[in-house]
Amino acid sequence: MNRLLEDLRIVEFSAFVAAPLGGMTMAQLGADVIRIDPIGGAIDFARWPVTDSGASLYWAGLNKAKRSVALALDKPEGRELARAIATAPGPGAGIVLTNLPPLAGLDYASLKSERDDIIVLRLTGNRDGSAAVDYTVNAASGFPLVTGPGGAPVNHVLPAWDIAAGLYLATALLAAERHRGRTGAGQEVVAALSDVMLAMVGHLGYVGDVHINGRARPAIGNDLYGSFGRDFATADGRRVMIIALTPRQWRALGRATGLADKLAMVGTMMEVDLDTESGRFEARDAIAALIARWCAGKTLAEIAPAFAGTGVLWGPFQDFVGLVRDDPRASPKNPLFAEIEQPGIGRYPMPGLPLDFSAATRQPTRPAPRLGEHTDIVLAQVLGLPAAEIGRLHDAGIAFGPKRS
Amino acid sequence: MNRLLEDLRIVEFSAFVAAPLGGMTMAQLGADVIRIDPIGGAIDFARWPVTDSGASLYWAGLNKAKRSVALALDKPEGRELARAIATAPGPGAGIVLTNLPPLAGLDYASLKSERDDIIVLRLTGNRDGSAAVDYTVNAASGFPLVTGPGGAPVNHVLPAWDIAAGLYLATALLAAERHRGRTGAGQEVVAALSDVMLAMVGHLGYVGDVHINGRARPAIGNDLYGSFGRDFATADGRRVMIIALTPRQWRALGRATGLADKLAMVGTMMEVDLDTESGRFEARDAIAALIARWCAGKTLAEIAPAFAGTGVLWGPFQDFVGLVRDDPRASPKNPLFAEIEQPGIGRYPMPGLPLDFSAATRQPTRPAPRLGEHTDIVLAQVLGLPAAEIGRLHDAGIAFGPKRS
Repeated sequence: MNRLLEDLRIVEFSAFVAAPLGGMTMAQLGADVIRIDPIGGAIDFARWPVTDSGASLYWAGLNKAKRSVALALDKPEGRELARAIATAPGPGAGIVLTNLPPLAGLDYASLKSERDDIIVLRLTGNRDGSAAVDYTVNAASGFPLVTGPGGAPVNHVLPAWDIAAGLYLATALLAAERHRGRTGAGQEVVAALSDVMLAMVGHLGYVGDVHINGRARPAIGNDLYGSFGRDFATADGRRVMIIALTPRQWRALGRATGLADKLAMVGTMMEVDLDTESGRFEARDAIAALIARWCAGKTLAEIAPAFAGTGVLWGPFQDFVGLVRDDPRASPKNPLFAEIEQPGIGRYPMPGLPLDFSAATRQPTRPAPRLGEHTDIVLAQVLGLPAAEIGRLHDAGIAFGPKRS
Repeated sequence: MNRLLEDLRIVEFSAFVAAPLGGMTMAQLGADVIRIDPIGGAIDFARWPVTDSGASLYWAGLNKAKRSVALALDKPEGRELARAIATAPGPGAGIVLTNLPPLAGLDYASLKSERDDIIVLRLTGNRDGSAAVDYTVNAASGFPLVTGPGGAPVNHVLPAWDIAAGLYLATALLAAERHRGRTGAGQEVVAALSDVMLAMVGHLGYVGDVHINGRARPAIGNDLYGSFGRDFATADGRRVMIIALTPRQWRALGRATGLADKLAMVGTMMEVDLDTESGRFEARDAIAALIARWCAGKTLAEIAPAFAGTGVLWGPFQDFVGLVRDDPRASPKNPLFAEIEQPGIGRYPMPGLPLDFSAATRQPTRPAPRLGEHTDIVLAQVLGLPAAEIGRLHDAGIAFGPKRS
């Protein structure tokens, strides 16, 4: 959290990862991000992981530092209030972020008719508007068929395409707001989740590989493609990732393991130049045979000091429990984390923004709102509604807040 | 490509994915992005995939639309030229993006002493400055141990942490530049790759899961965690991902397969409410038994029309070859792609920016530069060096360009 964007107000109609992450990034940069949900919550409100009482740790994680407004979006009056909040005046307001199909009156043209300089950032599934989510986009990407040992597709668990899309939206929002500040003009920015995937497959060279080379890289398990890197078992049943991507790292690995002479024999034996990435890749099984025996004879606690300060690039595998319990980087010892009371869930360390701005002091991390927590204050502050009218909206089932209901 | 940021100049000292992607995103938004490399190229210059002649499709993919300057960064005179380019005057200039350890005279303090309002965006491995790359950060993240069937870690192939870090840098760059435009003040923005990972593990609820629930999610192969989704084999040896994340998608799946009645029996049999995500997750194997038999009796060409227009969320798996050869989304039929001649490689479809701005026309995609292609023009334009001096720098091995050398 910092205050860099505290003059901006962003209204979010969203669910799941992409738009919520983009909006949360803005909120953690200080913007007033108002997520407007249907009463009862959007389709992501109970997404796993959840607590034993069913509260979503996922929803809490992706909506920190926002304000929550709950309205009957299935009724014209609820949608009209949402439209009024989205198009309310103010130089830093009039910005809408969404990854849901627009409801009646909440599409770009309707919002623009109310506020001419509105900025709408909209994520779709496919460019033609058809549905696509991280799971289907990933299936089409080619990556599942080169993940793991090959033969059967292996899906990533990290929703990587949603994350990339959310951060593209954050970048696009600031680019569009910069343009509005200079020209007065708003605009609609549209991104398709499938295009985010396609762009990345192209950027990483895999489209060119097929076109130019007429081939595609194979599945090679945990081996690093085109250089040396692999996971190895330790004497105490742990696994470590060891990498020699650069010549410096390669020499460091030989020195730290005492295997430099034997590794040189691999080069002669395999007739490759191990000072090149492609040479190390070609000889990777022979290299790995030596490194595997070295690792198998040592516990993780012995490997760590053997590599410390040597320039060897490596790291142990750990599960989520190990990460949270044993890795100080995932605790408030790291300024990224602060222990926060999340209403309805409890107290646990929550990450802030993984960016440190020297000109913007890190502010305390804020939890996610309760659903509808800010309905009344937003109706009063942004729309100027009197208390009696807000009361009527609650009674009519148009507005919802956790205290009254 | 568009021209939204055409008044910005960004100088990049980078390698591999994160900073190059962040810089390329700015270049595709119209900024003048000058990547300064050592003569001969940085450590990513030959990264795989490569052509048969060794040209890197990866490097070309991640450096499109930039200008390339090659200088002897191992010599004081080369570093001094780099410093002069990075700190050259101009309201949109004075922005440096890097994911490499700073060379002498190119750290934030030195650059700031030359240009007080400079903005430096710097990605490190760990927060303490120690080395970490996507492979080691991923090993620590917990994700490899819940990817695939479990038991052994499975690394992602997509460098997801680098991608997220690169797009965080792009967002941070625009936030810092906005701040400078309002206050006149530059700053240093630092991000650690491990913090990007840790933030995301927290955002997705996995840190809270361990703290609050005392447990971590298991590895469940390609099953969707907490709802219904899985891959299925077709009669013709393909695989498809089928998902029922929302009640609407669940009902659509029953209707489209004609299995609604049998699926209802699963609910009774397993004593769960299949209208809830957790109910579908608990009964997933029984649900999958029915869907698997349905898919096994049909080819992909039969499944596609059976699901078309039904609201079923699904998609086929394809490899990189299938994506490039058979999927029109990965071809110039999609405005995201344009067929471009990449010097030293050949002609193939390259993706532009996966964002369409209604107020900024999409410009033609530009290829990556040849190494040092813009050395002379940048020395002349940005530093005002006369031709004779540029010639001397070439003769002295301080500057490099592809034509002279």
